[in-house]
Amino acid sequence: MAKVRTPPIYTTPTDAAMAFYQAFEAKDVDAMMTTWAEDEEIVCVHPGGTRLVGYDAVRQGWEQLFAGDARLTFRLDQVVMIETVGLAMQSAIEHLQAGEEGTRGAAVATNVMMRTPSGWRIVCHHASPAPPVSDAPASGPLH
Amino acid sequence: MAKVRTPPIYTTPTDAAMAFYQAFEAKDVDAMMTTWAEDEEIVCVHPGGTRLVGYDAVRQGWEQLFAGDARLTFRLDQVVMIETVGLAMQSAIEHLQAGEEGTRGAAVATNVMMRTPSGWRIVCHHASPAPPVSDAPASGPLH
Repeated sequence: MAKVRTPPIYTTPTDAAMAFYQAFEAKDVDAMMTTWAEDEEIVCVHPGGTRLVGYDAVRQGWEQLFAGDARLTFRLDQVVMIETVGLAMQSAIEHLQAGEEGTRGAAVATNVMMRTPSGWRIVCHHASPAPPVSDAPASGPLH
Repeated sequence: MAKVRTPPIYTTPTDAAMAFYQAFEAKDVDAMMTTWAEDEEIVCVHPGGTRLVGYDAVRQGWEQLFAGDARLTFRLDQVVMIETVGLAMQSAIEHLQAGEEGTRGAAVATNVMMRTPSGWRIVCHHASPAPPVSDAPASGPLH
């Protein structure tokens, strides 16, 4: 049974990015794809994965990712946003947690949103593993 | 001895991106930094590295990278460009070679350029290692 949904209109780049992460946490492919521009030039790079280009390839990538058992939760940190009238860039550290007590990790994400006739939509999501953060030498004492 | 250079004005996002890769190949920190916006919101992620934010941190990152022996050459492949009046995004596969007969590798790069009073400048470079490309299963026959 196909769900009939009116595609939402995101009035700011931040709204589109928030909806993106909400759909990611909900593992909802349809909701995820309403945050993307329907365009052959959209780009998605999952951490360590092949670059996916175009609406169909990006959708398939999310279907594969959401087919797994893990349910991720995100907390964005150190967000940088550059916004112009037609295009916006968000850079952030994604703190991820798999399940309620699950493993934690971090990724660096660059998201690019474009203003379309249907509101702001994602045109690029590039995520890559963040190295462990350490100001002190790894083998040194904490204090 | 400080070199006195008039900062170039890049009239298109592509010009800024080309100058970026030329400076990268030349290992020229000053030329590299004239391709970047003088801004505290600029973001640079080298493959596997920590995210660097702000002009000084980005410059130090290039100084460290260029201090090494390797001289890289780049060939960009499968370029996707989204361009608006104020901001542009370039996504590409970077094919890298270290030295004339050196090792080869590939990275996925997302570059974001912004139109500033001084022309188009880089505001984000996010590069991460590209996985080996294989359409066929690794253990399967080619035909």
